[in-house]
Amino acid sequence: MTELRGPVRVVGTGLIGTSIGLALTRLGVVVELIDADPDSALMAERIGAGSRLVQLAPQLVVVAVPPDHVGEVIAEQLRQTDAIVTDAASVKGKPLADAKALTDKAADDLARYVGSHPMAGSERNGPLAGRADLFDGATWAITPHPTSDPEAVELVRRLAEACGARTVELSVADHDLAVARVSHLPQLMSSLAAGTLVDAPSAHLDLSGQGVRDVTRIAASDPGLWTQIVSANSPALSGLLEQIRDELDRLLIALGKEEAADEVTAVLRRGVSGAVRVPGKHGSPHIELVSVLVTIPDRPGQLARLFADAAASGANVEDLRIDHSPGRPVGEVELAVKPASVDQLVRVLTERGWSVHR
Amino acid sequence: MTELRGPVRVVGTGLIGTSIGLALTRLGVVVELIDADPDSALMAERIGAGSRLVQLAPQLVVVAVPPDHVGEVIAEQLRQTDAIVTDAASVKGKPLADAKALTDKAADDLARYVGSHPMAGSERNGPLAGRADLFDGATWAITPHPTSDPEAVELVRRLAEACGARTVELSVADHDLAVARVSHLPQLMSSLAAGTLVDAPSAHLDLSGQGVRDVTRIAASDPGLWTQIVSANSPALSGLLEQIRDELDRLLIALGKEEAADEVTAVLRRGVSGAVRVPGKHGSPHIELVSVLVTIPDRPGQLARLFADAAASGANVEDLRIDHSPGRPVGEVELAVKPASVDQLVRVLTERGWSVHR
Repeated sequence: MTELRGPVRVVGTGLIGTSIGLALTRLGVVVELIDADPDSALMAERIGAGSRLVQLAPQLVVVAVPPDHVGEVIAEQLRQTDAIVTDAASVKGKPLADAKALTDKAADDLARYVGSHPMAGSERNGPLAGRADLFDGATWAITPHPTSDPEAVELVRRLAEACGARTVELSVADHDLAVARVSHLPQLMSSLAAGTLVDAPSAHLDLSGQGVRDVTRIAASDPGLWTQIVSANSPALSGLLEQIRDELDRLLIALGKEEAADEVTAVLRRGVSGAVRVPGKHGSPHIELVSVLVTIPDRPGQLARLFADAAASGANVEDLRIDHSPGRPVGEVELAVKPASVDQLVRVLTERGWSVHR
Repeated sequence: MTELRGPVRVVGTGLIGTSIGLALTRLGVVVELIDADPDSALMAERIGAGSRLVQLAPQLVVVAVPPDHVGEVIAEQLRQTDAIVTDAASVKGKPLADAKALTDKAADDLARYVGSHPMAGSERNGPLAGRADLFDGATWAITPHPTSDPEAVELVRRLAEACGARTVELSVADHDLAVARVSHLPQLMSSLAAGTLVDAPSAHLDLSGQGVRDVTRIAASDPGLWTQIVSANSPALSGLLEQIRDELDRLLIALGKEEAADEVTAVLRRGVSGAVRVPGKHGSPHIELVSVLVTIPDRPGQLARLFADAAASGANVEDLRIDHSPGRPVGEVELAVKPASVDQLVRVLTERGWSVHR
């Protein structure tokens, strides 16, 4: 069995690299921290993610630099060390191709590389956003290429498990198509939708509800990082974007005619079929939850009172959403619970004076 | 001053009609309930939204039937009564045009009609979903046409205010462009994004995170209702959809080339500029909120404990979001508070043993 003994060298002490360092240090693994920006490595060291000076040669190198530079740093680390090398980039095809192009003089080297993608993140960046528990229960994709050494694959799996993640093994191509679908395409659709609001009069924006807020939330993400991700995954993304463009073309033709209904219905129905496949809590689309709406006054302590009352009913709140429509003096909280809990929840909340709607 | 005395005739006892009936009945206004489906009117009557038999002629008629039928029912009510007539449809141009076409024999009649759009709703439908407080603090758009009688406009304003809503006056064309932007286009973008997931292998969907959940949430909306809305507002929507299609075309051309970055960055940056314009709580994009992330175990009572501790710090939680990534044994709650409250909130939560991240 391949054991993760360390030292582990982390190259790139941003959110992901620092969080990996914190998780491994917590387990007693020696972590070496390297960053092109000395201040970043220093900060990561100060918060306990590892050390900038480690004498022993690394057993494993984790490359957690910005997407554009991943391939060259992988190649560099394969050249400089005898360690197994992985990376944490959210696209896997391009880093592999880049690393391959740079290591062709010693093709054997590439056997020591296995790509991986810890699927956790935050809207915060930099070492100070790092957290030992960032990957607790998160999905960590491992993407061996045909010449990856099985021992290298095993060591990367150990790394993911040491960080508390659940691993999924996928081919490089499959991974990139999957993230194009469930991450990169939604990002672009959100950005395109939000883009139409740039020139809108304020009076139009005053009519915004929860729907446009949800659809455009991730459009506020960092354009620099996302340009690198989208560009790196353009082969997988292009196919999906073409599919959307063709559907838009059909929709536009239909809307120009007297009878648009069929085409519009087709797009909307397809959307329903896709939406219900997105896993909810616990990764299962099969756990059915029931929603209860509660009107709450916009004052401190009301949410505390509501959740205390919900807990008193014995219900576990599986999901929740607060609706804060512009200008409303009251808010509305949607609590999702298992069907078995709903009657008791509604009874207890109503008894305690809440305005409850199912 | 034009007073709302009643009786008010509500035609269509779905969610919106029944809720208007409940709100007016609460104020002592006599409400007459009519629906093509006798069971629906009966249910609305049973929960106290009004009466199916009212002897007095109505002062005001509210047409709250499905979008496709609004125009003909407006014309019918103008013909059958001397009342002022409004409707509650989410598109205003088509009902007006339809009503106009059907009332040409007595153009004077149309002066008694003023369109309106109460911007509140629910994922629930039918009379039993009706609530007297559905419109409390919500926005209610009023859309006079050039020949609307000022007294009619005033009476519709009284109706909206009686239901607890905040009124906004817009021209018919302006309203339809506004809702195309902040409601109908986001709906279609959500449906199109979700549509690409229909044929995805389950292994791909396992990589779903919060982003795709947010973007595709409203794609689960009722295709029947939305087909009517989208078809009715196709003139306003077509322009926006063409804009998106053109941007997609530019993006696809760029992604096929070596250097895609500039075009991708432009789309993403435009998205950020649009996203920050979407009003948050209290209708103001100017109230800055600070987010605090708290890790919570997935057990009953933990949210209650968290919100009690948050309340003890004196902070008012302005917004919240729960992140329930598939498979995670812990959840993460994001609390948004005013900047002045954040230090005290973090201090109190940390003291009480929560794992808090800013």
